[in-house]
Amino acid sequence: MAFSPLVDELVESLRCLPGVGQKTAQRMAFHLLERGRGGGERLATALQGAMSGVRRCNSCQNFADTEICNLCADEKRRTGTLCVVESPSDLLAIEQAGYYDGSYFVLMGHLSPIDGIGPQEIGIEQLLKRVRGEGVTELILATNPTVEGEATAHYIADRLEGQNVLITRLAHGIPVGGELGYVDGFTLSHAFRGRKPLAD
Amino acid sequence: MAFSPLVDELVESLRCLPGVGQKTAQRMAFHLLERGRGGGERLATALQGAMSGVRRCNSCQNFADTEICNLCADEKRRTGTLCVVESPSDLLAIEQAGYYDGSYFVLMGHLSPIDGIGPQEIGIEQLLKRVRGEGVTELILATNPTVEGEATAHYIADRLEGQNVLITRLAHGIPVGGELGYVDGFTLSHAFRGRKPLAD
Repeated sequence: MAFSPLVDELVESLRCLPGVGQKTAQRMAFHLLERGRGGGERLATALQGAMSGVRRCNSCQNFADTEICNLCADEKRRTGTLCVVESPSDLLAIEQAGYYDGSYFVLMGHLSPIDGIGPQEIGIEQLLKRVRGEGVTELILATNPTVEGEATAHYIADRLEGQNVLITRLAHGIPVGGELGYVDGFTLSHAFRGRKPLAD
Repeated sequence: MAFSPLVDELVESLRCLPGVGQKTAQRMAFHLLERGRGGGERLATALQGAMSGVRRCNSCQNFADTEICNLCADEKRRTGTLCVVESPSDLLAIEQAGYYDGSYFVLMGHLSPIDGIGPQEIGIEQLLKRVRGEGVTELILATNPTVEGEATAHYIADRLEGQNVLITRLAHGIPVGGELGYVDGFTLSHAFRGRKPLAD
Protein backbone atom coordinates (compact mmCIF):
# COMPACT_ATOMS: atom_id res chain seq x y z
CA MET A 1 0.00 0.00 0.00
CA ALA A 2 1.66 3.15 -1.14
CA PHE A 3 -0.55 5.75 0.38
CA SER A 4 0.07 5.65 4.12
CA PRO A 5 2.75 3.98 6.26
CA LEU A 6 0.45 4.22 9.29
CA VAL A 7 -2.31 2.30 7.48
CA ASP A 8 0.29 -0.20 6.21
CA GLU A 9 1.52 -0.85 9.72
CA LEU A 10 -2.04 -1.21 11.04
CA VAL A 11 -2.88 -3.80 8.34
CA GLU A 12 0.35 -5.71 9.03
CA SER A 13 -0.25 -5.76 12.81
CA LEU A 14 -3.86 -6.92 12.44
CA ARG A 15 -2.50 -10.06 10.79
CA CYS A 16 -1.23 -11.27 14.18
CA LEU A 17 -4.87 -12.12 14.97
CA PRO A 18 -5.76 -15.77 14.30
CA GLY A 19 -7.66 -16.34 11.06
CA VAL A 20 -6.92 -12.87 9.72
CA GLY A 21 -5.16 -12.68 6.35
CA GLN A 22 -4.22 -9.74 4.15
CA LYS A 23 -7.71 -9.02 2.77
CA THR A 24 -9.48 -9.31 6.13
CA ALA A 25 -6.83 -7.15 7.80
CA GLN A 26 -7.37 -4.49 5.12
CA ARG A 27 -11.13 -4.61 5.60
CA MET A 28 -10.71 -4.30 9.38
CA ALA A 29 -8.30 -1.37 9.08
CA PHE A 30 -10.53 0.53 6.64
CA HIS A 31 -13.59 -0.16 8.76
CA LEU A 32 -11.90 1.23 11.88
CA LEU A 33 -10.60 4.29 10.02
CA GLU A 34 -13.90 5.06 8.30
CA ARG A 35 -16.48 4.26 10.91
CA GLY A 36 -14.92 3.06 14.14
CA ARG A 37 -12.14 5.35 15.40
CA GLY A 38 -13.64 5.29 18.90
CA GLY A 39 -13.69 1.50 18.89
CA GLY A 40 -10.13 1.42 17.57
CA GLU A 41 -8.87 3.62 20.38
CA ARG A 42 -10.70 1.53 22.96
CA LEU A 43 -9.15 -1.61 21.47
CA ALA A 44 -5.68 -0.07 21.61
CA THR A 45 -6.10 0.71 25.32
CA ALA A 46 -7.58 -2.73 26.09
CA LEU A 47 -4.74 -4.48 24.25
CA GLN A 48 -2.12 -2.51 26.12
CA GLY A 49 -3.78 -3.21 29.47
CA ALA A 50 -4.24 -6.91 28.82
CA MET A 51 -0.83 -7.59 27.25
CA SER A 52 1.00 -6.06 30.20
CA GLY A 53 -1.46 -6.79 33.02
CA VAL A 54 -2.80 -10.31 32.52
CA ARG A 55 -0.87 -13.06 34.30
CA ARG A 56 -1.47 -16.66 35.40
CA CYS A 57 -3.40 -17.47 38.57
CA ASN A 58 -1.01 -19.04 41.11
CA SER A 59 -3.60 -21.63 42.03
CA CYS A 60 -5.34 -22.74 38.80
CA GLN A 61 -3.01 -21.38 36.07
CA ASN A 62 -5.91 -19.56 34.37
CA PHE A 63 -5.55 -15.98 33.11
CA ALA A 64 -5.99 -13.50 35.96
CA ASP A 65 -5.37 -9.85 36.83
CA THR A 66 -4.25 -10.77 40.36
CA GLU A 67 -2.14 -13.47 42.02
CA ILE A 68 -5.22 -15.59 42.71
CA CYS A 69 -8.06 -15.41 40.17
CA ASN A 70 -11.64 -14.54 41.09
CA LEU A 71 -12.82 -18.13 40.68
CA CYS A 72 -10.16 -19.53 43.02
CA ALA A 73 -10.77 -16.74 45.53
CA ASP A 74 -14.55 -17.34 45.52
CA GLU A 75 -15.41 -18.96 48.86
CA LYS A 76 -18.76 -20.24 47.59
CA ARG A 77 -17.10 -22.76 45.24
CA ARG A 78 -16.61 -26.27 46.55
CA THR A 79 -12.90 -27.00 46.88
CA GLY A 80 -13.21 -30.77 47.26
CA THR A 81 -13.97 -31.15 43.55
CA LEU A 82 -11.36 -30.14 40.97
CA CYS A 83 -12.08 -29.98 37.25
CA VAL A 84 -9.08 -30.17 34.88
CA VAL A 85 -9.53 -28.41 31.51
CA GLU A 86 -7.15 -27.75 28.64
CA SER A 87 -7.87 -24.06 28.05
CA PRO A 88 -9.62 -20.95 29.42
CA SER A 89 -12.28 -21.27 26.70
CA ASP A 90 -13.16 -24.77 27.95
CA LEU A 91 -13.48 -23.32 31.46
CA LEU A 92 -15.74 -20.57 30.10
CA ALA A 93 -17.98 -23.10 28.33
CA ILE A 94 -18.38 -25.05 31.58
CA GLU A 95 -19.05 -21.86 33.57
CA GLN A 96 -21.67 -20.75 31.04
CA ALA A 97 -23.41 -24.13 31.34
CA GLY A 98 -23.90 -23.20 34.99
CA TYR A 99 -23.94 -26.74 36.45
CA TYR A 100 -20.49 -27.10 37.96
CA ASP A 101 -19.66 -25.31 41.22
CA GLY A 102 -16.25 -26.73 42.15
CA SER A 103 -12.73 -25.49 41.46
CA TYR A 104 -10.71 -25.63 38.27
CA PHE A 105 -7.22 -26.34 37.04
CA VAL A 106 -6.32 -25.04 33.57
CA LEU A 107 -3.51 -26.97 31.86
CA MET A 108 -3.11 -24.38 29.05
CA GLY A 109 -2.55 -27.20 26.57
CA HIS A 110 -2.19 -30.97 26.51
CA LEU A 111 0.67 -33.45 26.50
CA SER A 112 2.25 -33.47 23.04
CA PRO A 113 5.77 -34.94 23.12
CA ILE A 114 6.23 -34.26 19.40
CA ASP A 115 5.91 -30.51 20.08
CA GLY A 116 8.13 -30.74 23.16
CA ILE A 117 5.19 -30.33 25.55
CA GLY A 118 5.64 -32.63 28.54
CA PRO A 119 4.11 -32.76 32.05
CA GLN A 120 6.35 -29.88 33.14
CA GLU A 121 5.08 -27.47 30.49
CA ILE A 122 1.41 -27.86 31.37
CA GLY A 123 1.92 -27.76 35.12
CA ILE A 124 0.97 -31.33 36.03
CA GLU A 125 3.27 -31.32 39.08
CA GLN A 126 1.42 -28.29 40.41
CA LEU A 127 -1.89 -30.06 39.78
CA LEU A 128 -0.74 -33.18 41.67
CA LYS A 129 0.47 -31.03 44.55
CA ARG A 130 -2.94 -29.36 44.74
CA VAL A 131 -4.76 -32.71 44.65
CA ARG A 132 -2.61 -34.10 47.46
CA GLY A 133 -2.42 -30.96 49.55
CA GLU A 134 -5.95 -29.57 49.42
CA GLY A 135 -8.00 -32.65 50.29
CA VAL A 136 -9.50 -33.04 46.81
CA THR A 137 -11.99 -35.92 46.82
CA GLU A 138 -13.00 -35.91 43.16
CA LEU A 139 -10.87 -35.01 40.15
CA ILE A 140 -12.89 -34.49 36.95
CA LEU A 141 -10.64 -34.86 33.90
CA ALA A 142 -12.44 -32.62 31.38
CA THR A 143 -9.68 -32.61 28.75
CA ASN A 144 -10.92 -32.78 25.15
CA PRO A 145 -12.01 -36.17 23.71
CA THR A 146 -9.06 -36.11 21.26
CA VAL A 147 -6.03 -38.38 21.17
CA GLU A 148 -3.90 -35.82 23.04
CA GLY A 149 -6.67 -34.98 25.50
CA GLU A 150 -7.24 -38.66 26.30
CA ALA A 151 -3.49 -39.26 26.70
CA THR A 152 -3.24 -36.30 29.06
CA ALA A 153 -6.18 -37.61 31.13
CA HIS A 154 -4.67 -41.09 31.33
CA TYR A 155 -1.28 -39.70 32.32
CA ILE A 156 -2.80 -37.71 35.18
CA ALA A 157 -4.89 -40.71 36.30
CA ASP A 158 -1.79 -42.95 36.26
CA ARG A 159 0.17 -40.49 38.37
CA LEU A 160 -2.60 -40.49 40.99
CA GLU A 161 -2.93 -44.27 41.27
CA GLY A 162 -3.15 -45.42 44.84
CA GLN A 163 -4.29 -42.02 46.07
CA ASN A 164 -7.69 -41.80 47.70
CA VAL A 165 -9.22 -39.65 44.95
CA LEU A 166 -12.22 -40.44 42.76
CA ILE A 167 -11.15 -39.78 39.17
CA THR A 168 -13.93 -39.16 36.65
CA ARG A 169 -14.28 -38.26 32.99
CA LEU A 170 -17.21 -36.40 31.34
CA ALA A 171 -19.88 -38.70 29.82
CA HIS A 172 -19.89 -39.33 26.07
CA GLY A 173 -23.24 -39.52 24.26
CA ILE A 174 -25.67 -37.82 21.93
CA PRO A 175 -25.69 -34.02 22.24
CA VAL A 176 -28.99 -32.67 23.59
CA GLY A 177 -31.12 -31.50 20.64
CA GLY A 178 -28.93 -33.42 18.19
CA GLU A 179 -30.32 -35.66 15.45
CA LEU A 180 -29.33 -39.34 15.50
CA GLY A 181 -28.72 -39.32 11.71
CA TYR A 182 -25.91 -36.79 12.13
CA VAL A 183 -24.16 -38.38 15.12
CA ASP A 184 -20.94 -40.26 14.31
CA GLY A 185 -20.54 -43.98 14.96
CA PHE A 186 -18.11 -43.69 17.88
CA THR A 187 -20.44 -41.37 19.75
CA LEU A 188 -23.44 -43.59 19.02
CA SER A 189 -21.57 -46.65 20.33
CA HIS A 190 -20.66 -44.73 23.48
CA ALA A 191 -24.30 -43.67 23.85
CA PHE A 192 -25.47 -47.30 23.56
CA ARG A 193 -22.89 -48.55 26.01
CA GLY A 194 -23.85 -45.83 28.49
CA ARG A 195 -27.63 -46.22 28.14
CA LYS A 196 -29.74 -45.69 31.28
CA PRO A 197 -33.14 -46.83 32.60
CA LEU A 198 -35.86 -44.36 31.55
CA ALA A 199 -36.73 -43.48 35.14
CA ASP A 200 -33.24 -42.08 35.77
CA MET B 1 -16.26 -14.02 32.06
CA ALA B 2 -15.65 -14.01 35.75
CA PHE B 3 -11.94 -14.47 35.91
CA SER B 4 -10.37 -11.27 34.63
CA PRO B 5 -11.78 -7.78 33.94
CA LEU B 6 -8.78 -7.06 31.66
CA VAL B 7 -9.55 -10.10 29.51
CA ASP B 8 -13.26 -9.18 29.51
CA GLU B 9 -12.50 -5.70 28.26
CA LEU B 10 -10.15 -7.07 25.57
CA VAL B 11 -12.83 -9.46 24.29
CA GLU B 12 -15.45 -6.70 24.28
CA SER B 13 -13.18 -4.28 22.41
CA LEU B 14 -12.22 -6.86 19.77
CA ARG B 15 -15.89 -7.01 18.83
CA CYS B 16 -15.60 -3.56 17.21
CA LEU B 17 -13.79 -5.31 14.33
CA PRO B 18 -16.09 -6.18 11.41
CA GLY B 19 -17.17 -9.83 11.29
CA VAL B 20 -15.96 -10.56 14.84
CA GLY B 21 -18.56 -11.92 17.27
CA GLN B 22 -18.27 -13.10 20.86
CA LYS B 23 -16.67 -16.48 20.11
CA THR B 24 -14.14 -15.14 17.60
CA ALA B 25 -13.24 -12.28 19.93
CA GLN B 26 -12.61 -14.81 22.72
CA ARG B 27 -10.44 -16.93 20.45
CA MET B 28 -8.45 -13.86 19.37
CA ALA B 29 -7.96 -12.64 22.95
CA PHE B 30 -6.80 -16.07 24.19
CA HIS B 31 -4.50 -16.47 21.19
CA LEU B 32 -2.84 -13.11 21.86
CA LEU B 33 -2.49 -13.82 25.59
CA GLU B 34 -1.14 -17.35 25.13
CA ARG B 35 1.08 -17.06 22.11
CA GLY B 36 1.17 -13.53 20.74
CA ARG B 37 1.89 -10.91 23.38
CA GLY B 38 4.47 -9.26 21.13
CA GLY B 39 1.99 -9.06 18.29
CA GLY B 40 -0.67 -7.69 20.63
CA GLU B 41 1.61 -4.91 21.81
CA ARG B 42 2.56 -4.06 18.24
CA LEU B 43 -1.13 -3.96 17.30
CA ALA B 44 -1.90 -1.64 20.22
CA THR B 45 0.80 0.81 19.08
CA ALA B 46 -0.27 0.61 15.43
CA LEU B 47 -3.91 1.22 16.36
CA GLN B 48 -3.03 4.23 18.45
CA GLY B 49 -0.84 5.69 15.70
CA ALA B 50 -3.39 5.13 12.95
CA MET B 51 -6.48 6.26 14.89
CA SER B 52 -4.91 9.57 15.81
CA GLY B 53 -2.58 10.09 12.81
CA VAL B 54 -4.47 9.04 9.68
CA ARG B 55 -6.37 11.83 7.93
CA ARG B 56 -7.84 12.47 4.48
CA CYS B 57 -5.65 13.61 1.57
CA ASN B 58 -6.60 17.17 0.60
CA SER B 59 -6.45 16.29 -3.05
CA CYS B 60 -7.97 12.80 -3.49
CA GLN B 61 -9.77 12.23 -0.13
CA ASN B 62 -7.92 8.93 0.40
CA PHE B 63 -6.42 8.00 3.77
CA ALA B 64 -3.06 9.68 4.25
CA ASP B 65 -0.52 10.53 6.95
CA THR B 66 0.17 13.95 5.43
CA GLU B 67 -1.87 16.74 3.83
CA ILE B 68 -1.25 15.35 0.35
CA CYS B 69 -0.96 11.56 0.02
CA ASN B 70 2.01 9.80 -1.56
CA LEU B 71 0.08 8.94 -4.70
CA CYS B 72 -1.03 12.54 -5.31
CA ALA B 73 2.47 13.81 -4.56
CA ASP B 74 4.07 11.33 -6.97
CA GLU B 75 5.23 13.35 -9.99
CA LYS B 76 5.50 10.25 -12.17
CA ARG B 77 1.70 9.78 -12.27
CA ARG B 78 -0.18 11.32 -15.18
CA THR B 79 -2.44 14.06 -13.89
CA GLY B 80 -4.56 14.38 -17.05
CA THR B 81 -6.39 11.13 -16.23
CA LEU B 82 -8.47 10.88 -13.07
CA CYS B 83 -9.97 7.62 -11.81
CA VAL B 84 -12.95 7.88 -9.43
CA VAL B 85 -13.35 4.95 -7.00
CA GLU B 86 -15.70 4.34 -4.08
CA SER B 87 -13.21 3.21 -1.46
CA PRO B 88 -9.51 2.87 -0.58
CA SER B 89 -9.75 -0.90 -1.13
CA ASP B 90 -10.92 -0.32 -4.72
CA LEU B 91 -7.92 1.97 -5.22
CA LEU B 92 -5.64 -0.72 -3.80
CA ALA B 93 -7.04 -3.36 -6.15
CA ILE B 94 -6.39 -1.08 -9.14
CA GLU B 95 -2.87 -0.27 -7.90
CA GLN B 96 -2.09 -3.96 -7.41
CA ALA B 97 -3.23 -4.68 -10.98
CA GLY B 98 -0.42 -2.35 -12.02
CA TYR B 99 -1.97 -1.09 -15.26
CA TYR B 100 -3.24 2.38 -14.35
CA ASP B 101 -0.75 5.23 -13.88
CA GLY B 102 -3.02 8.27 -13.54
CA SER B 103 -4.44 10.04 -10.48
CA TYR B 104 -7.31 9.02 -8.23
CA PHE B 105 -10.26 10.47 -6.44
CA VAL B 106 -11.73 8.41 -3.60
CA LEU B 107 -15.42 9.13 -2.89
CA MET B 108 -15.42 7.14 0.40
CA GLY B 109 -18.90 5.86 -0.42
CA HIS B 110 -21.60 6.26 -3.03
CA LEU B 111 -24.77 8.33 -3.39
CA SER B 112 -27.46 6.83 -1.20
CA PRO B 113 -30.26 9.33 -0.48
CA ILE B 114 -32.05 6.82 1.75
CA ASP B 115 -29.04 6.88 4.13
CA GLY B 116 -28.73 10.64 3.85
CA ILE B 117 -25.62 10.45 1.68
CA GLY B 118 -25.80 13.12 -1.02
CA PRO B 119 -23.17 14.73 -3.34
CA GLN B 120 -21.90 16.85 -0.43
CA GLU B 121 -21.07 13.87 1.77
CA ILE B 122 -18.90 12.10 -0.80
CA GLY B 123 -17.10 15.25 -1.98
CA ILE B 124 -18.45 15.50 -5.50
CA GLU B 125 -18.06 19.31 -5.53
CA GLN B 126 -14.38 18.87 -4.75
CA LEU B 127 -14.10 16.32 -7.56
CA LEU B 128 -15.75 18.68 -10.07
CA LYS B 129 -13.46 21.51 -8.97
CA ARG B 130 -10.45 19.28 -9.59
CA VAL B 131 -11.72 18.18 -13.01
CA ARG B 132 -12.30 21.80 -14.07
CA GLY B 133 -9.22 23.30 -12.48
CA GLU B 134 -6.48 20.75 -13.23
CA GLY B 135 -6.99 20.22 -16.96
CA VAL B 136 -8.27 16.66 -16.63
CA THR B 137 -8.84 15.19 -20.11
CA GLU B 138 -10.25 11.79 -19.12
CA LEU B 139 -12.39 10.91 -16.12
CA ILE B 140 -12.66 7.14 -15.49
CA LEU B 141 -15.73 6.40 -13.37
CA ALA B 142 -14.64 3.20 -11.62
CA THR B 143 -17.51 3.06 -9.11
CA ASN B 144 -18.87 -0.42 -8.43
CA PRO B 145 -21.28 -2.00 -10.94
CA THR B 146 -24.12 -1.88 -8.37
CA VAL B 147 -27.30 0.23 -8.46
CA GLU B 148 -25.75 2.87 -6.18
CA GLY B 149 -22.41 2.81 -8.00
CA GLU B 150 -24.10 3.26 -11.39
CA ALA B 151 -26.27 6.08 -10.03
CA THR B 152 -23.20 7.83 -8.63
CA ALA B 153 -21.40 7.49 -11.97
CA HIS B 154 -24.39 8.87 -13.88
CA TYR B 155 -24.75 11.77 -11.47
CA ILE B 156 -21.09 12.77 -11.94
CA ALA B 157 -21.37 12.40 -15.73
CA ASP B 158 -24.50 14.57 -15.77
CA ARG B 159 -22.80 17.30 -13.76
CA LEU B 160 -19.94 17.41 -16.26
CA GLU B 161 -22.09 17.62 -19.38
CA GLY B 162 -20.84 20.20 -21.84
CA GLN B 163 -17.32 20.15 -20.36
CA ASN B 164 -14.51 19.09 -22.61
CA VAL B 165 -13.75 15.88 -20.68
CA LEU B 166 -13.85 12.30 -21.95
CA ILE B 167 -15.88 10.31 -19.43
CA THR B 168 -15.36 6.53 -19.42
CA ARG B 169 -16.52 3.52 -17.45
CA LEU B 170 -14.62 0.23 -16.93
CA ALA B 171 -15.54 -2.53 -19.42
CA HIS B 172 -17.95 -5.29 -18.39
CA GLY B 173 -17.28 -8.83 -19.57
CA ILE B 174 -16.14 -12.30 -18.63
CA PRO B 175 -13.44 -12.33 -15.90
CA VAL B 176 -10.09 -13.63 -17.18
CA GLY B 177 -9.77 -17.29 -16.23
CA GLY B 178 -13.51 -17.53 -15.50
CA GLU B 179 -15.71 -20.34 -16.79
CA LEU B 180 -18.64 -19.43 -19.05
CA GLY B 181 -20.96 -21.80 -17.19
CA TYR B 182 -20.55 -19.80 -13.98
CA VAL B 183 -20.92 -16.31 -15.46
CA ASP B 184 -24.31 -14.63 -14.85
CA GLY B 185 -26.63 -13.65 -17.69
CA PHE B 186 -26.14 -9.87 -17.37
CA THR B 187 -22.39 -10.19 -17.63
CA LEU B 188 -22.65 -12.59 -20.57
CA SER B 189 -24.99 -10.18 -22.42
CA HIS B 190 -22.49 -7.36 -21.78
CA ALA B 191 -19.67 -9.58 -23.07
CA PHE B 192 -21.61 -10.33 -26.27
CA ARG B 193 -22.49 -6.69 -26.85
CA GLY B 194 -18.87 -5.68 -26.34
CA ARG B 195 -17.31 -8.46 -28.48
CA LYS B 196 -14.16 -7.57 -30.43
CA PRO B 197 -12.39 -8.79 -33.59
CA LEU B 198 -9.89 -11.54 -32.75
CA ALA B 199 -6.92 -9.50 -33.98
CA ASP B 200 -7.52 -6.79 -31.39
